[in-house]
Amino acid sequence: MLRTELDLINRFFSGRQVQRKDVLLSLGDDCAVVKVPQGVRIAVSTDTLVGGTHFPLSANPAWVAHKALSSNISDLAAMGATPAWLSLALTIPKLDKIWLTAFSCSFFELADCFGMQLIGGDTTRGPLSITITVQGFLRENRILKRDGAKVGDWIYVTGNLGDSRAGLEVILNSRIYDNDPLAKELERRHYLSSPRVLVGQALLGLANAAVDISDGLISDLKNILKASCVGASVDVSLLPISQELVQFVGGSISTAQQYALSSGEEYELCFTVPEQEKSSIETKLVHCDVKVSCIGRIESIDTLNLHAKGESLNWKLNGYDHFKDNNG
Amino acid sequence: MLRTELDLINRFFSGRQVQRKDVLLSLGDDCAVVKVPQGVRIAVSTDTLVGGTHFPLSANPAWVAHKALSSNISDLAAMGATPAWLSLALTIPKLDKIWLTAFSCSFFELADCFGMQLIGGDTTRGPLSITITVQGFLRENRILKRDGAKVGDWIYVTGNLGDSRAGLEVILNSRIYDNDPLAKELERRHYLSSPRVLVGQALLGLANAAVDISDGLISDLKNILKASCVGASVDVSLLPISQELVQFVGGSISTAQQYALSSGEEYELCFTVPEQEKSSIETKLVHCDVKVSCIGRIESIDTLNLHAKGESLNWKLNGYDHFKDNNG
Repeated sequence: MLRTELDLINRFFSGRQVQRKDVLLSLGDDCAVVKVPQGVRIAVSTDTLVGGTHFPLSANPAWVAHKALSSNISDLAAMGATPAWLSLALTIPKLDKIWLTAFSCSFFELADCFGMQLIGGDTTRGPLSITITVQGFLRENRILKRDGAKVGDWIYVTGNLGDSRAGLEVILNSRIYDNDPLAKELERRHYLSSPRVLVGQALLGLANAAVDISDGLISDLKNILKASCVGASVDVSLLPISQELVQFVGGSISTAQQYALSSGEEYELCFTVPEQEKSSIETKLVHCDVKVSCIGRIESIDTLNLHAKGESLNWKLNGYDHFKDNNG
Repeated sequence: MLRTELDLINRFFSGRQVQRKDVLLSLGDDCAVVKVPQGVRIAVSTDTLVGGTHFPLSANPAWVAHKALSSNISDLAAMGATPAWLSLALTIPKLDKIWLTAFSCSFFELADCFGMQLIGGDTTRGPLSITITVQGFLRENRILKRDGAKVGDWIYVTGNLGDSRAGLEVILNSRIYDNDPLAKELERRHYLSSPRVLVGQALLGLANAAVDISDGLISDLKNILKASCVGASVDVSLLPISQELVQFVGGSISTAQQYALSSGEEYELCFTVPEQEKSSIETKLVHCDVKVSCIGRIESIDTLNLHAKGESLNWKLNGYDHFKDNNG
């Protein structure tokens, strides 16, 4: 019988996580207390997933847990930080043992992958919502920021782009795609992104700027451009696109490219690398086991110019914003 | 016109807060980056307030902001920590400029009081909910914990107890109490508690154990007892009770005492002090400008014994738990 908040915490979230030596006090007191290694800076990020906004209320709880945590870890990756601690604020409409078991198992599986310890949080009753705060370590002056892009830098992205948006369409039209293995695979990719932590760390001292792609490549790249007071040209024919995405959009490469430009919640990295590092970038990232693609270059004119092998494009595309109606 | 999440953040939450020197990177990148003074431990706490669970959706947004932040700062106070940074995850059903203005002004007013800087967060669309993560500083081995209570310690509480529960009753029965100044005052006290940060800091090296009273004195004191493997006797006639509470419950002192024992979300501190410090405790807390009351003593038998001037009581009382139905 689960009766109280404390029972809930004990049952699903206490004593399950890795025990880090730098956590002096964890769940069970008014605060957690952690010790920070000397010379280390702390990177902190908070993200919320709201049931009904960021995922359907009927979504697989294991996938929801993965998405919630990986979107947060992705922010650490984008700074080149080493994941350390996390806090989980979980609001649930009722004590559903099956849901909580699946959610917590998946949550700790991903946290364990990155050696992260759950140090605190809150469980409350209300409409389903998950807020996670992650913290990670950075060395002084070894930080990937948005504002460092320089004219002449090459623009890279990790992984494939666009699958997440296709997966979102599957989720929003689940009846149409029932029993379609391709659709199911894209839905899976939407939820189960891999935070590019190793890439972020490898880019320290190598890349001039980086972001993670949470609002769509165009939006996130524009954030780099704005912060760095530069522009860019992107060759859409170089965008990394999966065969599955092309198949999903009925074989139209240009539609797939538009998906790749505007797809939110990808949690791939977009980064810029100076000319002199271009030849070595793939070698330096080989241990990360992630595809990286060069898609364009930073320019002095402060616009984002899209072209296909030099041929100018006038696509009107927007990023992903939960306060617009582009999320169903 | 507010159109996007970024507009919202810029409009209400960027550039409004104090600028701490230890914040190297604040809102606007994937993570905030902070610098931790040498020898300092970090206390971290997260709390969520859900609209409709912890406050009515029609509640004054300024009061909601105060309650959300003060409940978090109270956790820092209970550890003796010095407040430093905070992250705000705000989920709102729509972009309501009037609501956001009142909320953000009150939020920053309280944050400024404690020199706290907003370093990050997330704004999302969905049912109204506020999750805050606060961080504060502690010196090594100077931490107020729950598990340090010793047999013979005197038990103290700050402020008055019970007003918060009376205020909650006013909120849940607003039609009955319309235009009643006493009820309005108790409602105000429910929302506008003062985190006892100065008391917590003054208790470092003085108190053996401390908690903040968020789930009701009985529940929270029991947490000290359980963690410390001790029991306690509490003289309910010594509980600090306001005249307004006695008036609210129709003059019954014992009803007011029962409110004081079970009232959640008080955000006063309960702490235990060894015999040798008893004579000096009020002097040492005089600069905090807060009433402190000695209400009982830690005992070896691991039960919580309630009495009135020595006369045993058999009151059945429970603490405050959002997963039970004691919250409306």
